[in-house]
Formats: sequence, structure tokens, C-alpha cells
Amino acid sequence: MIYADNAATTRMSEAAVRRMTSLIQEGWGNPSSLYRHGQIAKEYLEQAREEIAGLIGAQPREIIFTSGGSEADNQAIRSAALLGKKKGKQHIISSAFEHHAVLHTLKALEKEGFEVTLLDVHENGIVDPSEVEAAIREDTCLVTIMAANNEIGTIQPFREIGAVCRQKNVLYHVDAVQAVGHIPLNVIEDNIDLLSASAHKFHGPKGVGFLYAKKGVRLFNLIEGGAQERGLRAGTENVAGIAAMAEALKESMAGMQENAKYITKMRDRLIRGLSEIPHAALNGDAQRRLPGNVNFCFEGIEGESLLLLLDDKGICASSGSACTSGSLDPSHVLLAIGRIHDVAHGSLRLSIGEDITEEEVDYIIQAVKETVEYLRGFSPVWRDLMSGKKEFIL
Amino acid sequence: MIYADNAATTRMSEAAVRRMTSLIQEGWGNPSSLYRHGQIAKEYLEQAREEIAGLIGAQPREIIFTSGGSEADNQAIRSAALLGKKKGKQHIISSAFEHHAVLHTLKALEKEGFEVTLLDVHENGIVDPSEVEAAIREDTCLVTIMAANNEIGTIQPFREIGAVCRQKNVLYHVDAVQAVGHIPLNVIEDNIDLLSASAHKFHGPKGVGFLYAKKGVRLFNLIEGGAQERGLRAGTENVAGIAAMAEALKESMAGMQENAKYITKMRDRLIRGLSEIPHAALNGDAQRRLPGNVNFCFEGIEGESLLLLLDDKGICASSGSACTSGSLDPSHVLLAIGRIHDVAHGSLRLSIGEDITEEEVDYIIQAVKETVEYLRGFSPVWRDLMSGKKEFIL
Repeated sequence: MIYADNAATTRMSEAAVRRMTSLIQEGWGNPSSLYRHGQIAKEYLEQAREEIAGLIGAQPREIIFTSGGSEADNQAIRSAALLGKKKGKQHIISSAFEHHAVLHTLKALEKEGFEVTLLDVHENGIVDPSEVEAAIREDTCLVTIMAANNEIGTIQPFREIGAVCRQKNVLYHVDAVQAVGHIPLNVIEDNIDLLSASAHKFHGPKGVGFLYAKKGVRLFNLIEGGAQERGLRAGTENVAGIAAMAEALKESMAGMQENAKYITKMRDRLIRGLSEIPHAALNGDAQRRLPGNVNFCFEGIEGESLLLLLDDKGICASSGSACTSGSLDPSHVLLAIGRIHDVAHGSLRLSIGEDITEEEVDYIIQAVKETVEYLRGFSPVWRDLMSGKKEFIL
Repeated sequence: MIYADNAATTRMSEAAVRRMTSLIQEGWGNPSSLYRHGQIAKEYLEQAREEIAGLIGAQPREIIFTSGGSEADNQAIRSAALLGKKKGKQHIISSAFEHHAVLHTLKALEKEGFEVTLLDVHENGIVDPSEVEAAIREDTCLVTIMAANNEIGTIQPFREIGAVCRQKNVLYHVDAVQAVGHIPLNVIEDNIDLLSASAHKFHGPKGVGFLYAKKGVRLFNLIEGGAQERGLRAGTENVAGIAAMAEALKESMAGMQENAKYITKMRDRLIRGLSEIPHAALNGDAQRRLPGNVNFCFEGIEGESLLLLLDDKGICASSGSACTSGSLDPSHVLLAIGRIHDVAHGSLRLSIGEDITEEEVDYIIQAVKETVEYLRGFSPVWRDLMSGKKEFIL
């Protein structure tokens, strides 16, 4: 199996597996318990908090643990919205291609009286900081723009957006689920007030993530109950998962520079190879994207059929976000960068990791070329395009 | 170490550890992915759903997975509240000694315009179904009363309360975090509409739980985002944790009858032994309580000191809920059953499991006897009680 869907989820690193396996057997006390067995679990928890904080430039007290990126996004945005409301500020700025954890939370807030401005992400899939600045109003309480897009991998100018927000005194939340552990990120240098991350995107376990909230930015509970996480997130802490997340992040950060260099090389090889397919186009900026992300549209085919045939050839890939699979709607991300419905349906996302070999990259290129050609062979849309009945877009 | 704090958390069973360790390494695909590697993960997920549903008398579609009991409580109560509000019904009935995941959610709802009636739990720690019936009004949308109390272990007449709710056409939510896997429970026979459970209370992993919602009872998202869990709970599913939870529940259910018999015997031995301590009293009904729960108040001592000294003797115990440790307030549960502040401060909860031996039980009895006597030796309160300056309550 060639796994090229690291944006959907990653394989846990061996060190993270070891940490988790060890703690579910040895460190299983309740961190809130007073006796030693509980306090040992609390030490694991606080050690993980210190490590994670240190890796992103935060203080331990600025990190709370959640069940994943979606929960962190929800809590961050709802907290900023509630803070805004208390000050009579009910305008939020975001972008059209955020993850649904952000967009659906914003939709819910709209029903509760908030006004949301979704910025254009342009053809290159990148938000322009000057447009953020222009959109900020007197009543803007929050800007929430992701660090890197989950489908097309484009990296947003989050540091510049953060600087704009600081200058205008507006909170800035970054959904950094795809970025943490993959590209350099520092909450201080990057002017970030709130940041969401998910362990299983950087070789940690599923079901655990974290939320950074800058000192002074008050959080409100999404989950009410016990006094865990300084009263901000109830529920017995998933100590083993949290410790494994810290382990995975340490490793990802330590290997980032070297891995990114190699993965970028493999990515660019993939992009070059797939660009040879006629009537195909890379989605999003070719350079300002995550090291491992490749996303193409191929005219005249259905992305889903392509995936299933690639699966037969041992390649795990996706057409877009795994979170929306099963939906027949075209990707909102591809629509946001201006792809029309027909073209957006024929998309392929390959998100590779450091374990990929050059041979595997070449195998993927060959497999995609053959499969696209094969599918076009009996596509009525392709026939219409070839006969001139329909015009090529790509 | 003698672990007598199973109400706080339990050690994962060997089978659950094996399942989890296996799936984090082999079943790590994203269940939303179309390729086989993802679909295999989806099968693990759906198999766990079927197993868990089957074990509590539910249909698979009636189960959604959460990050634990607190999240399930929050979502269940908020969903019922929202449904009620749509019908102009904003009255909720609960009890004074629910878990904070319930009480704090209700407090938040009060701020949003709901009215909450908290029923008396009497000296025996048991809610009277006729009082539930009497409290139901035209505008009551929800009754939320736990299956078994987390501190004093008293089992509520949930089936009877459920019958009252059915007859009055009011939704019934059961926080069954302490009950699932420990006492018989069947959502159909017990007339339950919504039920919350947490894996780490029945030898499963931390960070995972489930919410049962009877067909026709609409849930609303607590966490917005992707289309996971039929769109009702966003976030990549914690497949390994969920599968390990199913494994743990299967085992707990299979061994329940036999284990309960043994644990009850050990519990009663503990109760008899500790009752010999002068000016001590069992909290909650002696019979209608969880097999493993023992909770005493000892006059003239501080519960926290008792715990630390027991820890020195190798015994893990608690004074009440681990979720509120660190707080100096006396237990709201003990206050609810009529203990005054001074007495409530001197509490001890022992929650034993099937691994406890008779020798360990006798060791605990001896250790508690000695430690209580030792602490009373230099307690000014005890001196006042003995000299008649203060009157004994117990």
C-alpha cells in the first residue's frame, strides 16, 4: 500500500505508539486524584503540556487539551464570539475555503445574530492580508483564517494576517490542523491569539488535539462539567493520548526541516509528472503550499472513480476532505478558487509523507496517467469535449 | 498498590489494551476515506457501534460516539433543551446530586432562560419517582436523573422514572457513566430516551464515550464540522479508542453478574468493618447502591488528610468525585443527602473492583480504622466533641 492521504490522517509514529501503549497500562490513574498513582498521571499530562507549549512558542497555561481539531475550532471561535458579543461586536471575518469545523460554527453563529464576512481566496488559494485589513470593521471581534488549507495545501500568510489583527486589536484564530508539525509556526512571532491543532495529522493518535489561547484571551466552555483543564474543558483527561500527541509533535518538529526538504522534492516531482496529463491543472499556488500536498483537477472524469481505481492499484488518495466524503456536492474549496462544478468533480488530492520513495512517486504518476486516460475512454463528457460539443476549460 | 477508586477511573482490561494497541498500528485509516484502508477502519467503527448498541438494547443508529461522558451529557441535555425550546417548553427536572457535567450544563441553560427544578435526593440518596411525577409541568421538556451516583453509588429507580416520563411524554436522559458495565441496564426496558456513558469507567480507555439517543429524538451538534456520526458529532473518529471501548463493555457485561456478586460481598464486608469505627456513618442507602461503592463520613477528621495517609499505606481512595478535587467546597452530593459541612468534609469513598481480595479488604478496614483514630488524636474538633464542647452528629 502506498499511503498518499496524510492530510486525512497519518500513521502513528513508533514513538507515539510506544508512549500510548505504555501509558494505557502504567499511567492510567485519574490526574485529578490526590494519591501518587493519580499524581503520576497528572505529571504525564503537565509534561505533555509543557512540551507542546514549548514547541509552538506558547506557555503551558496557554494550552488546553481537546478531543481534536474540530472541538478546538468550535471552542476557539465560540469563545471569541462570546467575548465579542459582550462588547457589542458581532462581526467575524473568515475565508470561503476554511474547514467545515470553522464554517459550520460560523453558520451557527450567524443564526445567533453574528455577521460573517467570507473573504475571497483567489485562484491561487491564498487570502490577501490587505483584504483582511480592509474587511475589519469597528464591530469585528474575530478573524479566523487557517494556516494551510486541508484540500489544496496552500499556506496562508498567517503572520501578516496576525500583524494586521494585532494592529487593529481584533482576535486572530488560526485553524492550524494541517500546519502544526509540518511547517514552522510560532504563536508569538506569528501574532496568533487562538490556534487549533489535531494530533492525528502529525503522527499522533486520533481523538486528541489542543487549543492554544494567548494569555488574556478568555475561553468559554464548550463542554461543561468537572474542573479539568482549569475549568475550561470538562472530562477526565485522555492522558495516554495527550502524552502520545506530545511525543509525535516533538518528533515532527525535530525532523521537520529535513523531512520538508525531501517531501517538497517528491511533491514537485509528482506535480511535474501529473502536469503532463492533458487538460489537467494543479489546484492552488505551486510553491506556497504544504510540502506534501498535490491537488489536481482532470477534465472529463469523476474523482470518485479515479480513487477507487487507484485503490485497486494500491494507492490511497482522496478527492478532497475526508470529512465530507459521502457528499455529492463538489468541494467548497475548489469552488472557492474558481473551479466550476464539472471540473471540481474531477479532483485528486495526494498528500505524501516522509516515508514515500521516489519509486513510489513514479508509480503514482504512471498509475494516475493510465487511470485518467482509461476513465476518459468511456466518459461522455470527455467525448463531448473531444468532439468540440463542449469547450475545454483546463 | 490497592486500587479502591474505580469510580474515578478503572484500569483498562487486557483485551481492551490489546484491541487498542492493535488498531493504532493496523487500523489507523480515516473511516471517511473511500479506499479499503479507510473502509476497514470504518468497519471497526461500525462493528463497535453494533456491539455497544446490542449490549444496552439499542439500535446501532441510536449510538453516537463522543470524547467521553461529559461531552455526552452536555450534548444530550442541550439537544433536549433545544427541542423543548422549539415547542415553548423550557422547564427541566433534575436532582441536586447529579454530576457537574449535568449540573453545570443546567446552570448554563438557566442563564439562557430555562427553569430548572432540582429534586431532593433524601437521606438515602435516592430520588422518588412520585416526586418526579409531581414536578412535571406542562412546559417540562426534560428529566435528567442519573442511573447511579458517582460519589455515594446509590442506584436511582431509573426504570420507574423512565415510565413516569413516558407516560407524561417528557424526554428522559440518564447519566449512566457510573452504571454502564456495572449494573443491568436496557434502554428499552428502562424507558430511556437519552443515555451517556464513558469508557474509562468500565475498563476501557480515557477520552471516549457514547451517547444513546432513541430513534426520533433529534440530536443537535455540540461540535460542528465534518459529516462524521451522521453529521451529529464532527471530528475524525477515534477508531482504536472506540473499538477498545466496545471490547471493554463486552467483557464487563459478560462478567457482570458474577463480578457483582463477589464485589457486593466485599463491599458489605468493608461496610461492616468500617461501621465499627465510632461516630462514623455510611452515606447513602446500604443496599440500593453500586456493588463496589462504599462511602463513609467520619466525624472530627479531614477527608484529605485521611486520603494522603491511606496513600502512604498503599491504598488509592478518594473523598468524593475526582472531577472536583482541588476544590475546598464540601461535596455537593453529601450536602444533598443532608450531611452538614463539617461532617461532609470527613468523607471517604472506596470504589472497589473484581480484582480486590478479601485480604485487601481487611487491610483497608484496618488501615482506615488506624488512620481515623490517629487523625482524631490531634484534631481540635475531635477534642471539642469528646469534651462535650461540641455535640456529636453521627
